[in-house]
Amino acid sequence: MSKKWVYLFTEGNASMRDLLGGKGAGVAEMTRTGVPVPPGFTITTEACNEYYARGKQFPEGLWEQTLAALKVIEEQVGKKFGDPDNPLLVSVRSGARESMPGMMDTVLNLGLNKETLAGLARLTNNPRFAADAYRRFVQLFGKIVLGVDGEKFEHVMSEAKGRDRQDTDLTAEELMQIAETFKAIIKEDAGVDFPEDPYEQLRMAITAVFNSWMGRRAVDYRRVYKIPDTLGTGVNVQTMVFGNMGNDSATGVAFTRNPATGADELYGEYLVNAQGEDVVAGIRTPKPISKLREEMPEVYEQFSQIAKMLERHYKDVQDVEFTIERGKLWMLQTRNGKRTGMAAVKIAVDMVNEGLIDKRTALRRVQPEMLNQFLFPIVNPAAAEHATRLARGLAAGPGAAQGRIVLDPDEAAARSEQGERVILVRTETAPEDFHGMVASQAILTARGGLTSHAAVVARQLGKCCVCGCGDLEIDYKAGAVHVHGTDVILKDGDWITVDGHSGWVYAGQVETQEAEVIQVIRGQMKPEDSKLYGYFTTFLSWADEVRRLGVRANADTPTDARVARLFGAEGIGLCRTEHMFFEGDRIDAVREMIVADTPEDRRRALAKIEPLQQGDFEGIFEVMDGLPVTIRTLDPPLHEFLPHGDREIEELAHKMGIDVATLKAKIEGLREANPMLGFRGCRLGIEYPEITEMQARAIFHAAANCQARGIKVHPEIMIPLVGDVSELRMQGDIVRRVADEVMAETGQKIDYLLGTMIEVPRAALTADKIATIAEFFSFGTNDLTQMTFGMSRDDAGRFLPLYVERKLLKDDPFEVLDQEGVGQLVRMGVERGRSTRPDLKTGICGEHGGEPESVKFCHRVGLNYVSCSPYRVVIARLAAAQAVLEEQK
Amino acid sequence: MSKKWVYLFTEGNASMRDLLGGKGAGVAEMTRTGVPVPPGFTITTEACNEYYARGKQFPEGLWEQTLAALKVIEEQVGKKFGDPDNPLLVSVRSGARESMPGMMDTVLNLGLNKETLAGLARLTNNPRFAADAYRRFVQLFGKIVLGVDGEKFEHVMSEAKGRDRQDTDLTAEELMQIAETFKAIIKEDAGVDFPEDPYEQLRMAITAVFNSWMGRRAVDYRRVYKIPDTLGTGVNVQTMVFGNMGNDSATGVAFTRNPATGADELYGEYLVNAQGEDVVAGIRTPKPISKLREEMPEVYEQFSQIAKMLERHYKDVQDVEFTIERGKLWMLQTRNGKRTGMAAVKIAVDMVNEGLIDKRTALRRVQPEMLNQFLFPIVNPAAAEHATRLARGLAAGPGAAQGRIVLDPDEAAARSEQGERVILVRTETAPEDFHGMVASQAILTARGGLTSHAAVVARQLGKCCVCGCGDLEIDYKAGAVHVHGTDVILKDGDWITVDGHSGWVYAGQVETQEAEVIQVIRGQMKPEDSKLYGYFTTFLSWADEVRRLGVRANADTPTDARVARLFGAEGIGLCRTEHMFFEGDRIDAVREMIVADTPEDRRRALAKIEPLQQGDFEGIFEVMDGLPVTIRTLDPPLHEFLPHGDREIEELAHKMGIDVATLKAKIEGLREANPMLGFRGCRLGIEYPEITEMQARAIFHAAANCQARGIKVHPEIMIPLVGDVSELRMQGDIVRRVADEVMAETGQKIDYLLGTMIEVPRAALTADKIATIAEFFSFGTNDLTQMTFGMSRDDAGRFLPLYVERKLLKDDPFEVLDQEGVGQLVRMGVERGRSTRPDLKTGICGEHGGEPESVKFCHRVGLNYVSCSPYRVVIARLAAAQAVLEEQK
Repeated sequence: MSKKWVYLFTEGNASMRDLLGGKGAGVAEMTRTGVPVPPGFTITTEACNEYYARGKQFPEGLWEQTLAALKVIEEQVGKKFGDPDNPLLVSVRSGARESMPGMMDTVLNLGLNKETLAGLARLTNNPRFAADAYRRFVQLFGKIVLGVDGEKFEHVMSEAKGRDRQDTDLTAEELMQIAETFKAIIKEDAGVDFPEDPYEQLRMAITAVFNSWMGRRAVDYRRVYKIPDTLGTGVNVQTMVFGNMGNDSATGVAFTRNPATGADELYGEYLVNAQGEDVVAGIRTPKPISKLREEMPEVYEQFSQIAKMLERHYKDVQDVEFTIERGKLWMLQTRNGKRTGMAAVKIAVDMVNEGLIDKRTALRRVQPEMLNQFLFPIVNPAAAEHATRLARGLAAGPGAAQGRIVLDPDEAAARSEQGERVILVRTETAPEDFHGMVASQAILTARGGLTSHAAVVARQLGKCCVCGCGDLEIDYKAGAVHVHGTDVILKDGDWITVDGHSGWVYAGQVETQEAEVIQVIRGQMKPEDSKLYGYFTTFLSWADEVRRLGVRANADTPTDARVARLFGAEGIGLCRTEHMFFEGDRIDAVREMIVADTPEDRRRALAKIEPLQQGDFEGIFEVMDGLPVTIRTLDPPLHEFLPHGDREIEELAHKMGIDVATLKAKIEGLREANPMLGFRGCRLGIEYPEITEMQARAIFHAAANCQARGIKVHPEIMIPLVGDVSELRMQGDIVRRVADEVMAETGQKIDYLLGTMIEVPRAALTADKIATIAEFFSFGTNDLTQMTFGMSRDDAGRFLPLYVERKLLKDDPFEVLDQEGVGQLVRMGVERGRSTRPDLKTGICGEHGGEPESVKFCHRVGLNYVSCSPYRVVIARLAAAQAVLEEQK
Repeated sequence: MSKKWVYLFTEGNASMRDLLGGKGAGVAEMTRTGVPVPPGFTITTEACNEYYARGKQFPEGLWEQTLAALKVIEEQVGKKFGDPDNPLLVSVRSGARESMPGMMDTVLNLGLNKETLAGLARLTNNPRFAADAYRRFVQLFGKIVLGVDGEKFEHVMSEAKGRDRQDTDLTAEELMQIAETFKAIIKEDAGVDFPEDPYEQLRMAITAVFNSWMGRRAVDYRRVYKIPDTLGTGVNVQTMVFGNMGNDSATGVAFTRNPATGADELYGEYLVNAQGEDVVAGIRTPKPISKLREEMPEVYEQFSQIAKMLERHYKDVQDVEFTIERGKLWMLQTRNGKRTGMAAVKIAVDMVNEGLIDKRTALRRVQPEMLNQFLFPIVNPAAAEHATRLARGLAAGPGAAQGRIVLDPDEAAARSEQGERVILVRTETAPEDFHGMVASQAILTARGGLTSHAAVVARQLGKCCVCGCGDLEIDYKAGAVHVHGTDVILKDGDWITVDGHSGWVYAGQVETQEAEVIQVIRGQMKPEDSKLYGYFTTFLSWADEVRRLGVRANADTPTDARVARLFGAEGIGLCRTEHMFFEGDRIDAVREMIVADTPEDRRRALAKIEPLQQGDFEGIFEVMDGLPVTIRTLDPPLHEFLPHGDREIEELAHKMGIDVATLKAKIEGLREANPMLGFRGCRLGIEYPEITEMQARAIFHAAANCQARGIKVHPEIMIPLVGDVSELRMQGDIVRRVADEVMAETGQKIDYLLGTMIEVPRAALTADKIATIAEFFSFGTNDLTQMTFGMSRDDAGRFLPLYVERKLLKDDPFEVLDQEGVGQLVRMGVERGRSTRPDLKTGICGEHGGEPESVKFCHRVGLNYVSCSPYRVVIARLAAAQAVLEEQK
């Protein structure tokens, strides 16, 4: 006896997903629970595998079992397949375990031919309905089973309708004519006569589903997502029901709760006298589901009960498809419904309160990235539909913003001060543009990847940013932005809207919405007035109950630190001392320090900076009272602090009272072939120990002052770019000496740690030695990624998109931590570090610290904490909780 | 009873080096073999350790044992320590197991005071001799034991001599007066009265030796060379003998064979009526040792027999010190003699032929780097002494050269063509300077490290180069070179001489010598006419018998390949296809390819390059007939091929018939923030597959043509900068497809391999996956070092010297492979690669492939071969043999 290849819907259930596919298991489960589902059967995924094993031959017994199942269905519905008097029509669909792009779509009305068509017309007493059903069948079969270009059919339809008529205006005769034209196209394109035999149709449709499993798009998709080819797809054959049999018929889709807001209400839409595809196609405007209560109160009542029942049964929001055929409700599909971030959180919290799910299930239900939607303004989706899209770049900084184009950072600052909303548009940004970036609503660049300067600063600031928008060409002189491939030339002052969630840039002002949670955190709204805020904090408190990984923020200023703390950061994981260098006049002293000829001159300049740095640190310690603050000593290449334009250099020379040529020579001398691999990080402090000394003094004086005022301080001093333990030893000696001096001087005993960033591959490789000096490691995965891949993040924009596009890499490694390569070094660093210092504290402070998959990896390798930009702290909190839950699975 | 701390010379022997130190064991061994050695004794290294263990107190019994030993000596020589009538005088010296800078020098004539001085004068009947001995003693004791600045004593001596007199012209009275002045200086500086008691003198001298063991220089030295502090130093106390007792007395140093040429002849010099230090000090000009045969034939005969005997005893050339006191020969020290590379090889080969040592011992005796001296012209050492040193940089390319300064590469080429000898002097060099570098005698740069462009190209060309000569400031406009810290301004056209062995730059033409081996290899001399060549090849053939590691060369042209083969290269490990791009007019086609807008334009330009590349490959295959040739596909950033000056850009635009502004924009568009981490390596071939395709076609067509002519070809195609297996897969698919096409087309079956460079850390980390595609790995340790350390070799000149100077790193990692960090990745790459492909072929093609310590490391991790510049092949051959010998130890 051959294997069982075919299961009636009445034989399956939800647990048979592997065998029947998602769709097959779904309808079986509905059938099992008594929901009215048009009868049908599923051909198993095993049959698909066997089909390939046999060199694309149907497995032994498959066809016979299919016919037998068809027979059962015929009896159930009292119709016969291919019977001209009372024809059974079916739909055929693919259905793998996971829904997968590239798999075969639905073929409807299969079983129609000239004879059954006549029968259908007679039976329904509606020749036009029958003709339309036939037209649809030929069209779908031609396109999906026989692979004819769908455009050709659409073209025929348009021609037939002419300028003013709808589909529904076509007569039966016209529709029959169209169907014949379709067949002629099929004959010409596919080289086959349209099959008249319903059994032949069915066999071909099943074969087409099987073949689509190994279609190129499906295979590519599985490669990327590492889904094995051996899963196979199921094939669902189901009795047709018709929503287009008159005004007592309808078809629709609905969610059991509102997928946009999470409100506990039926949400959906339907069309009277229509078939399913019409709803999706948007040819007619559907009615909201609430209307159904008026139009068909009994059906509505039944539908609403079934919906509630399914939701309870699946313990999640269901996205259902239904058809009403002459007043009778049929459920065609049910699956978990997709929802917005806001809705996901509300629904999860509500369902816990309703006792439907537990907290851990709730935490699993929300993708961490979705929490972003609570924080940032978004482009109103409805408004976006009607807006003019100009170009698309990388979605680099969250939110959406409208503003007038400004190309110069100084002008951006000036015009913003006058109350204008501006968007800074640059080829790329540099540290000296910072003030202009702060002043802008959003930042838009033509060059640079997701960790380019613009992107990093934007996320740090929680500011909307689209970067690497290659279609823009910025002409600074003309004050214009050309959009490649179009005639559009935007001028300085023109309004645009930037969507940092999608990467789209729109012309003009497109409506945006401000986030409630932000208003609460800014004190512009009372927490109790925001239901969203309540849901948000409740949900995150559950994440905190579960997670083991600490979550800190990268913050350089008291303002950033305050935001971070409000978002639940448990400390600062990276405070970059150099960002403070750009504020106000202090850049002058910094520049003086850089061009100093002698240690004495350098010390003199450093003496001016020291009290300012100390003040900054005091501000941060105050805000972070009781929590640790990791402060990194000076890191970037010095030339980043110097002006490069002739005019600015002249100004600076004048200010400093030195010769212009001398200053130019100095600046030129600091130019490097590869600044990323040059004179930076601890190399600065090794050549100029007085810089490290000054910074250590500022930190410890700040700490002592705060402590004297009753503030609890836990500074963690971090030496960057260490590649050999000797570097850390040398810099650490300075820090410890200064600490002792300040403690002796002030009488305050400061509880501090000394550690290093692990951002150079060699540091990870020699972590056991480095940990003999370091009390903590913070993995700087931005640089570690650059060096492990040998890819500069500033230059990768040239080739990395191609890599991701052609699937050479699954993800941009600057966005999602490369666990295979860079992750090995992180794991090695942790293991080796702890081999010589078992209580070594370990964290991550690269951009990856706020990316969910990377956070989960950090949990798995046993880091103590992740640190990310303040606005991603909540994402990290949830991801950290999910990491624990995944571990328990 | 206390431990034995003191050994008479008669109690020790050569095997007691650990206990007695090198010097102590040496004199004991000589004593034991019957050589006349002034009696004495050695205080053990254990005593030194115990001295420190007891907090700088003499170990129990040490002083008593010292006195007892002294007593024995007194009896042996019939004099008494401190006896005014017949005083025993001694020398005191340190002597650790290895000689070590910073350890205490010799104190002579210890035991003198006013009374014994008088006795000495009476006894020798030579008051002036006695006074001079006293003067020397006070001076040395003051300087060495009491730490007084030696300059102060010299100053007094100079004053006393006045303008025209020698030391020997000073009278006894004057010398006594000087000694008194010395004592006054000592009193003032060291705050102590000069000790009159000989026993007190001895105790102080012994203490000073002990203390010098922990002196800063000695400690630093041990840190660097990882010598444990616990070795301790011995103290040698030895009866004084005097070479300055008249014309029947003398003192000298000699080698048992000529240390410069290796000739089997006594080689040395002596001074009549002088003390040891006079020979070294160079105040009087010593006579060659051959003169001694005439002056004191019997002593000479005895000395010459002792020398031969010692050489046979130690089975190595001895460097001896001797003194003749009133016609009696005394041997004071013997140790293995340092020698030049040429001498080392000749002596080693001769000694094998004499049956004194075996071949393996011979191979151990020559440091691989010393073989360089066979190949390159050197500055005549005598001439160098009188030459004017201008500045010193890094010794980057071997040899020495005279030439006229030229600052512009075009001019260098032009003037060289007119037969002028020029030296190209640049701030730094770039690929477009190549023709100028080729045309020059030497290259001198102000910036850049040992792996800067100038240095790499120079070594590749076997050309003399000094780079990173920071004291030079090059003013291109003025055509002048300023030497910092001096008034010297060199002009274009001035003669200079550059020494690539020492890094010194001399003014004018300093005599150099051309290498014989080179003349033979160039066919300018017959092998049988060169004894040196015979020694050289004999010696290397022994290395080849022993070594397991293959040795290949990096060579880009048939000429390079020919040289490499003559030096014994067993294949080409790296052929850089891009170096060919600069030759003649082909750079035009290359530039056309780079600025092409479409794949079609690019193919058109590539079509012009293809036949030229094919021709190059044919030339190389011909030369390497039967040996493998590893060819790397295009690697460098494209902008390296483009001009950067305004004029050159205009010219190019004109040539290509495109707009200047457009070309400028193109060039600007290729500018990168960090080119090292940018768009290069396989990333080029991934974006422009047509480049890889063209190169593969050129290789396989060349191979097929050669094979058809009976030449054996083994191309190995190497894809650079791979970080993920997907990159290699994609590029490899192209290579394999083209190979199949060419083989089908030509009917030639080519035996080739496909592999990759491992030069990105991630490649080493994921080597198991990469080896599923790669048939060989070649470790590109230049880039691997850059990325593992996060250090650009172009920029490291700014800080790396400081790292090495301050001992943060033991060696420049671009020179000597960093075994601790980068080496881990190499080892990992080999192990993981072989885990998935057991027969994976592995090699190294970075600069380290010719550095002896790195070669030995490559042997230990099990690489199949190293590949280095042709001129370093012989070094690698010897190092590879030594690696085997070290393994057997």
